[in-house]
Amino acid sequence: MQFRGDVPTPALLLDLDAFEDNVQKMAAHLATRGKAFRPHGKTHKCPEVARALIRAGAVGCCAARLSEAEVFAQSGIPGLLITTAVIGRDKIARALALASSAPDTMFVVDDRQNVRDINEAAAARGKGEPVKVLVDLFFGRTGIAPGQPAVELAQLIESLPNITFGGLQSYDGAAAHTTPYDARSTRTKATMGKAVATKAMLERAGIACPLVTGGSTGTYRFDSENPGITELQPGSFVFMDMEYGTIGGPDGTEYRDFKNAITVVTTVVSRPPGFAIVDGGYKAFSTDRPFTPRPIGIDGVTYGWAGDEHGRLDLSNASRDVKLGDRIEFIPPHIDPTVNLYDHIYALRGDRVEAVWPIAARGKSQ
Amino acid sequence: MQFRGDVPTPALLLDLDAFEDNVQKMAAHLATRGKAFRPHGKTHKCPEVARALIRAGAVGCCAARLSEAEVFAQSGIPGLLITTAVIGRDKIARALALASSAPDTMFVVDDRQNVRDINEAAAARGKGEPVKVLVDLFFGRTGIAPGQPAVELAQLIESLPNITFGGLQSYDGAAAHTTPYDARSTRTKATMGKAVATKAMLERAGIACPLVTGGSTGTYRFDSENPGITELQPGSFVFMDMEYGTIGGPDGTEYRDFKNAITVVTTVVSRPPGFAIVDGGYKAFSTDRPFTPRPIGIDGVTYGWAGDEHGRLDLSNASRDVKLGDRIEFIPPHIDPTVNLYDHIYALRGDRVEAVWPIAARGKSQ
Repeated sequence: MQFRGDVPTPALLLDLDAFEDNVQKMAAHLATRGKAFRPHGKTHKCPEVARALIRAGAVGCCAARLSEAEVFAQSGIPGLLITTAVIGRDKIARALALASSAPDTMFVVDDRQNVRDINEAAAARGKGEPVKVLVDLFFGRTGIAPGQPAVELAQLIESLPNITFGGLQSYDGAAAHTTPYDARSTRTKATMGKAVATKAMLERAGIACPLVTGGSTGTYRFDSENPGITELQPGSFVFMDMEYGTIGGPDGTEYRDFKNAITVVTTVVSRPPGFAIVDGGYKAFSTDRPFTPRPIGIDGVTYGWAGDEHGRLDLSNASRDVKLGDRIEFIPPHIDPTVNLYDHIYALRGDRVEAVWPIAARGKSQ
Repeated sequence: MQFRGDVPTPALLLDLDAFEDNVQKMAAHLATRGKAFRPHGKTHKCPEVARALIRAGAVGCCAARLSEAEVFAQSGIPGLLITTAVIGRDKIARALALASSAPDTMFVVDDRQNVRDINEAAAARGKGEPVKVLVDLFFGRTGIAPGQPAVELAQLIESLPNITFGGLQSYDGAAAHTTPYDARSTRTKATMGKAVATKAMLERAGIACPLVTGGSTGTYRFDSENPGITELQPGSFVFMDMEYGTIGGPDGTEYRDFKNAITVVTTVVSRPPGFAIVDGGYKAFSTDRPFTPRPIGIDGVTYGWAGDEHGRLDLSNASRDVKLGDRIEFIPPHIDPTVNLYDHIYALRGDRVEAVWPIAARGKSQ
């Protein structure tokens, strides 16, 4: 496969120039403000992307799940942070094995019994450094309430021999897509403010809190100005998607801080009168958002879902003709669940396929 | 992994008893009516499931795409029918390679140039039987209009030396979920009637039409009574899903012809006050339908999406308490895109894991 037109469809195409610009822009923004950068691997699930981010200055890679982190660790990615609590005997055993082979790995906790379970399992293994855990703060999904409850959980951690308190995870998922820009700023300042206040409470209680991690592609501008936040964990900026385009930039219009670097390429496989049927449906695009993939290079056309394997383009007002066999690229509605459908990223320099990167952690949600 | 409770979550669990009942019921229904049975592999993408269907009397396996069929062929599954047209030089070359290694493979066409392209490529390879193609009839998605246009395409096929006309594919996707029962019956009788009329036209034109294939889990009762239809290609009946439950049975209520055989098992990974957060979100369930996964074994609870990796259960009216670490199973909204998210099916006999089946064609949409 040498060229864009050779890639079997449907497939993920990465514009390397746009991707590299996105990586450099975020890395420079955070470096200038003295923030560490641990981008979230759940977006890309791809060791090559994680490596590119580390070359740009990232201190590591977040992983949504243990199995995702295991893949990154096997690929030699350092500084892993697993952003969902590890619950249950089997998963704790796997987490400890990972902590033994990759000792800079960090975990999150939000429950006293889970903290005790990890401590006891770590004692039973009888070797190794204490396991480093962050207290996950609650902003509507997982976590423990900021303030006194979080402080008490940190105190429990510090009282146990085989586990050590590493700091706070302060991720407010809903802030990432809060619209418009000013409302997003207000929201993340309020929620991150609670994290920073919790850090101050911890320090007054004599517990060091060297790390406060959070933030997203939507909030990085605000979070990176917050002196209490030590590192950011944005994910989507590497590739972008339609949804992030809609959240609004500082001028009230489209959010243009980063470029759309990923497209899904499809082929027209049937051409009934007035319509083009492409070979991408529910198995080729995320379907969790109330909008459909945006075609590139043709105007006046809306993609309509046509089942698991197909999409339908109404050509009544199309800006150009479409023939059987034509390739049509689309910006995906939501990047993370789209990437999770594919085994490879075709990395393009212009129209040339420069590399094919395995999405090695695709489907690793366990 | 010996037992249900050992499977790392999120995961697909298959109730083998329910699955085997579903397979036997469909196989017996079609055998009694003298219809061939070529169930659609796009639902399961799993060679073990295809083998179980063949043991029950299936003549082969449909595949939505060439790469899916290649996986089934590598697993020794006979009687493949690829239900989307194979477009473009590279894919035609792969299709011919498949036809050489698995000569009973069939393809569909709906375009004169594509027919000529396949014929020419087959000539260039200089060996092998003529490639068997079915004419795909248009009922709203892919295909050529039934009647004279389809007959003319069959005549073109018959005029060419390296390609042979095998019959008609008559798949009406929208009929499968037409509600209620009587409307579904009316719709599929009308569309399948056009296929049967086309078959009669072909025969009057001196072209044998030994095969008319179509039908779905929603329409099999009606299509199997249609004397012009020779074989059925239902898919979802092996596992079922929430959506098929809603289409209505003959008594006007839930559609109960087949049992829910697949669940997605999750773990409660956070337990903020009033809520349980499970480890299954957009990457664990299909999201293309306007309803959310249905929890099993607990009443008064609705699943709410909570991002790529999480779901949220409001416990205000829950019939029982839910604790951190509890496992909760869900019936998925839509089976095909759900299965496509996973690498394995955990096949259970009661609570015992009897086998772990690779979903070998997962992601094979190319």
